[in-house]
Amino acid sequence: MTEATKTEPLRLALAGLGTVGAGVIRLIETNADLIERRCGRRLQIVAVSARDRGKDRGVDLSRYAWEDDMTALPGRSDVDVVVELVGGSDGPALTLARKAIAGGKAFVTANKAMVAHHGLGLARDAEAAGVPMRFEAAVAGGIPVIKGLREGAAANYIERVYGILNGTCNYILSTMEDTGRDFGDVLAEAQAKGYAEADPTFDIDGIDAAHKLSILASIAFGTELDFAAVSTDGIRRLAAADIAQADSLGYVIRLIGMARVEDTVDGKHRLFQRVHPYLVPKDHPLAHVDGATNAVVAEGNFSGRLLFQGAGAGDGPTASAVVADIIDIARFWESENEIDPPFSIPVSELDPTVPAEAGSRSGKAYLRFMVADRTGVLAELTAAMRDAGVSIESIIQMGEDKGGSVMVAMVTHEGQESGVQRALELLAGSDSLTEEPLVMHILKQ
Amino acid sequence: MTEATKTEPLRLALAGLGTVGAGVIRLIETNADLIERRCGRRLQIVAVSARDRGKDRGVDLSRYAWEDDMTALPGRSDVDVVVELVGGSDGPALTLARKAIAGGKAFVTANKAMVAHHGLGLARDAEAAGVPMRFEAAVAGGIPVIKGLREGAAANYIERVYGILNGTCNYILSTMEDTGRDFGDVLAEAQAKGYAEADPTFDIDGIDAAHKLSILASIAFGTELDFAAVSTDGIRRLAAADIAQADSLGYVIRLIGMARVEDTVDGKHRLFQRVHPYLVPKDHPLAHVDGATNAVVAEGNFSGRLLFQGAGAGDGPTASAVVADIIDIARFWESENEIDPPFSIPVSELDPTVPAEAGSRSGKAYLRFMVADRTGVLAELTAAMRDAGVSIESIIQMGEDKGGSVMVAMVTHEGQESGVQRALELLAGSDSLTEEPLVMHILKQ
Repeated sequence: MTEATKTEPLRLALAGLGTVGAGVIRLIETNADLIERRCGRRLQIVAVSARDRGKDRGVDLSRYAWEDDMTALPGRSDVDVVVELVGGSDGPALTLARKAIAGGKAFVTANKAMVAHHGLGLARDAEAAGVPMRFEAAVAGGIPVIKGLREGAAANYIERVYGILNGTCNYILSTMEDTGRDFGDVLAEAQAKGYAEADPTFDIDGIDAAHKLSILASIAFGTELDFAAVSTDGIRRLAAADIAQADSLGYVIRLIGMARVEDTVDGKHRLFQRVHPYLVPKDHPLAHVDGATNAVVAEGNFSGRLLFQGAGAGDGPTASAVVADIIDIARFWESENEIDPPFSIPVSELDPTVPAEAGSRSGKAYLRFMVADRTGVLAELTAAMRDAGVSIESIIQMGEDKGGSVMVAMVTHEGQESGVQRALELLAGSDSLTEEPLVMHILKQ
Repeated sequence: MTEATKTEPLRLALAGLGTVGAGVIRLIETNADLIERRCGRRLQIVAVSARDRGKDRGVDLSRYAWEDDMTALPGRSDVDVVVELVGGSDGPALTLARKAIAGGKAFVTANKAMVAHHGLGLARDAEAAGVPMRFEAAVAGGIPVIKGLREGAAANYIERVYGILNGTCNYILSTMEDTGRDFGDVLAEAQAKGYAEADPTFDIDGIDAAHKLSILASIAFGTELDFAAVSTDGIRRLAAADIAQADSLGYVIRLIGMARVEDTVDGKHRLFQRVHPYLVPKDHPLAHVDGATNAVVAEGNFSGRLLFQGAGAGDGPTASAVVADIIDIARFWESENEIDPPFSIPVSELDPTVPAEAGSRSGKAYLRFMVADRTGVLAELTAAMRDAGVSIESIIQMGEDKGGSVMVAMVTHEGQESGVQRALELLAGSDSLTEEPLVMHILKQ
């Protein structure tokens, strides 16, 4: 593409016509005049593809060429940009991505799983081919947080990047908080309302949030993306009583993805990445993020704390992010030598990482035990804490029974996480415990 | 600048070495390696200028050439970018801006007053000269909100843009809220601590927020910047009792800059721009923005509500935004024909506006009257409201006296703002009122 062609329309092929794909078409049609003013040229959808041609999607596809085989889209000579909205970390989405980049097309995707698993390889190919590759919609839906980190906060070393990255979990947690209902009950309702999938594993076990966190960490720290190293836990085991307990201690519970670079050994950064439920102090901005909203905090060494908040999913917000990427390409993609690396820094220059050591960081923790209702159990728990060197800030034994067992909740003083781990090892196998203890970290201000 | 020179350093001249100027130098020195990785070339400060050469600023200026006359900086052949951190809407800052642009230098500024007053003219010149002009730091300090609107939300028609744009006012209001103290008292303390200027007029009368709002509105709506049309009121008249009253009704008080396009008549948009203290519902994200923090909300027709929050002032955050602009220039400024218009859309294509009609919008309002403590006054107030067609949702007469007068606070039902105006006209001159009534609008969710 040369300068002379900049006033020509930018020609798009769309693969995947689910809610997001239909949303992208609706957005490009509805806001066509605005988009042309903002990027100096029109966006023109040329061809589309999806599994089922006949399905009613509420948009008129008759204007666009149809390809039965979506992987044929990149081969079309009338296409400048391939937009992938199919999903799935491998399969047709990945084939499409590779063909698009190899064919010299710009590539835009909303596919967090694919970027988390194959993003570095694809970015390397895109850099070699001199084509833009963008994935704003892969993290936090409509919130321009990738741009915020890549460009808005570009002058800063980022100390921590963290946030609420899964709207389904946040909806469930804030509903549990508002209603006092238990997890299973609220999940079932969320599924009935369409806020949670029939198979909710990816969301509620933290995998979706981990995909997003690994992408954010790479952009924020200039490190190699390492999804496999994210320590991931979900919200399945949370009870209404945990939320009530946290509330009485001045916290709310949120599923937080947290990343930081802890130190550097032999030229490799120790990258800490964790998706866990956290207790969030009520005066922290994330404590006020309710419903299906997402929010990302980046703490820069000059900017201080930046917060980006908005809708984390949905056809409109996701389409907004997809089209923002396309507009950037329409504005800036002038020649094969002038592309911005997908991860802001060329893949070959990203810093290598090793996973941070488990348990080496310091913080406060919340521990919840379900124990047999008999004499001496509290002494057993507190002795284990003492023997592991864990200092207890507060302890509450709830009167309420749950199948014959009693809940004991503790908050520790600031200390090494490994101490808590040791205490749990000391208690492992004890027949006083009626279920596996639950540990949550407390978010530092 | 041609492609071949991209790996050369980008050479900067800095005018103005106050806290922000010194912060920019510190940032560029401290984060030099990071910045080079992020933009593929070094930033090199070549020359600096300020009023007083001898002053200790905590940074070593001996490496940089000194110009006594800052307007000589753009004439230097060894400079690519002129960075203006002098302040003031006219005078040397404006002369410098014009000379830089006329001399083919890229121009970066943190000067909200100058952009509000002269931004369109400067942008027109920059477009004609083919040089970039950027002003991220002019709005909301370190928060990348101009980028968020120009690029992140570029696919959307923005319905409203609004936020907390002045950290000094927000510090005063949230301190009044936390402590129950009165305005004058908290202002004096803020001045003593350096959070408010000796002459606080620009901050507390809303002028600084109005500068920022007019810039945001132009970017968000693609309309001609019109600072003169911002209806501006500050926080001087707020009493501790107003804050207590708002609290009991479920609101906090924040100085909000609010803009929207109301309709279009004869090809001109009716642009509504207002900086006033608002009652903000406690479940709105802006209700949790405390201290000197800024926050901007943009509501897009596809993205939904986006929130950008962070430090609104200070040397570090402001420097972060200034250097983000410089990094963008280092990454993208390749030739004279490839610049992005400063207001995202070329000045000649921005929509003309007329100010929206006063009183034509609908909402709920809070009215506070100080009245003489005698029989019949309440009847007089409520009759005026009835005669003006204003429906009252709640009314509270506070027992507490203030120099012999009594406070009556009302919240109206949703209705035309002009109705409230009419009621106040009916009461004007009444000797029952011991001071001018105070009206605040209630922020709609």
